[in-house]
Amino acid sequence: MNRDVDPIELLIQELTKFPGIGEKTASRLVFHLLHCPQEDAEALARAVLNLKEKVRFCSLCFNLTAQEQCKICQDERRIEGVICVVEEPSDLIAIEKAGAFKGRYHVLQGAISPLDGIGPDNLKIKELLERLRRGKVDEVILATNINVEGETTALYLQKLIKPLGIKLTRIACGVPSGGDLEYIDRVTIGKALENRREI
Amino acid sequence: MNRDVDPIELLIQELTKFPGIGEKTASRLVFHLLHCPQEDAEALARAVLNLKEKVRFCSLCFNLTAQEQCKICQDERRIEGVICVVEEPSDLIAIEKAGAFKGRYHVLQGAISPLDGIGPDNLKIKELLERLRRGKVDEVILATNINVEGETTALYLQKLIKPLGIKLTRIACGVPSGGDLEYIDRVTIGKALENRREI
Repeated sequence: MNRDVDPIELLIQELTKFPGIGEKTASRLVFHLLHCPQEDAEALARAVLNLKEKVRFCSLCFNLTAQEQCKICQDERRIEGVICVVEEPSDLIAIEKAGAFKGRYHVLQGAISPLDGIGPDNLKIKELLERLRRGKVDEVILATNINVEGETTALYLQKLIKPLGIKLTRIACGVPSGGDLEYIDRVTIGKALENRREI
Repeated sequence: MNRDVDPIELLIQELTKFPGIGEKTASRLVFHLLHCPQEDAEALARAVLNLKEKVRFCSLCFNLTAQEQCKICQDERRIEGVICVVEEPSDLIAIEKAGAFKGRYHVLQGAISPLDGIGPDNLKIKELLERLRRGKVDEVILATNINVEGETTALYLQKLIKPLGIKLTRIACGVPSGGDLEYIDRVTIGKALENRREI
């Protein structure tokens, strides 16, 4: 460690590498850290190293886990016949928090994005198809994001999965709960009208 | 380290101890950390420990420093005769960033706040008076915050410093730059009118 670098400046530099953390937030975090007990700082440093050391990908669904298989794949109460396909582990967590899904997952680890150099081969698509061919799957829910990359990926998966004769669904696109039509973009309103349901 | 605790959950727990960081922001930081190289995580952990290990208070002005005296106290180009009194090191940094002050500082390390059990004895007031009695000081600028605690502290210091025959000033209170009168609170507008200057 260079003796001349100010420890405060150094930590601020490290913290501003994070998305959404600017110099002001970083300073606030540093001053909080200076006020808190030594043990808290040590616990934080340990948790950071522990994260990188222990976390790996589930060998079945590619969710993040500290074991060989993730908690969801190990949970026998989860319905094995329904697989929800998401882009990232953070999407999986969002769905789990909603508590509305009791099946299994498959994390693609991204979405098709030619501009970023991400093609189908960079995603866990081959592994998904292997899971489907092994049988026991009744339905695949495509829960990739509702944006260009997510829709492209869903379309690509649709072409591959349809021939397997498995029921294929896509999450609904519409006005979000609590959403005010006045502030919703035109594309979403268009989709919400297009996907209207009889009541 | 407990083997059963999920490393992701553990780091999220540690991060949410920070002010202004909720579970969502913490998750975002964790996922960023999972994507970045091992060295970045190590650098962050090291910077956290380094901060607690190296940072101490300047023996003269009680600013934060990695040495015996802080950079400002060591800088001979800074005007020695003017001392700006602030509550916290973060206030000092804010003033330094404004670049409008070329004197020295004194960090009280808080403000008088009976409700939080902070009295004058908990602040570096005795040390400030010692500095003033040693002579060479022409002006003391009270730059404690413009709130109840800061004003109380300023008033308290005023009573102690006035008898020393040193010029004593208080930072201006008024409408902030870029401020729209429509959205400024009544107290500030009152102060801005009261402190109006002839032009």
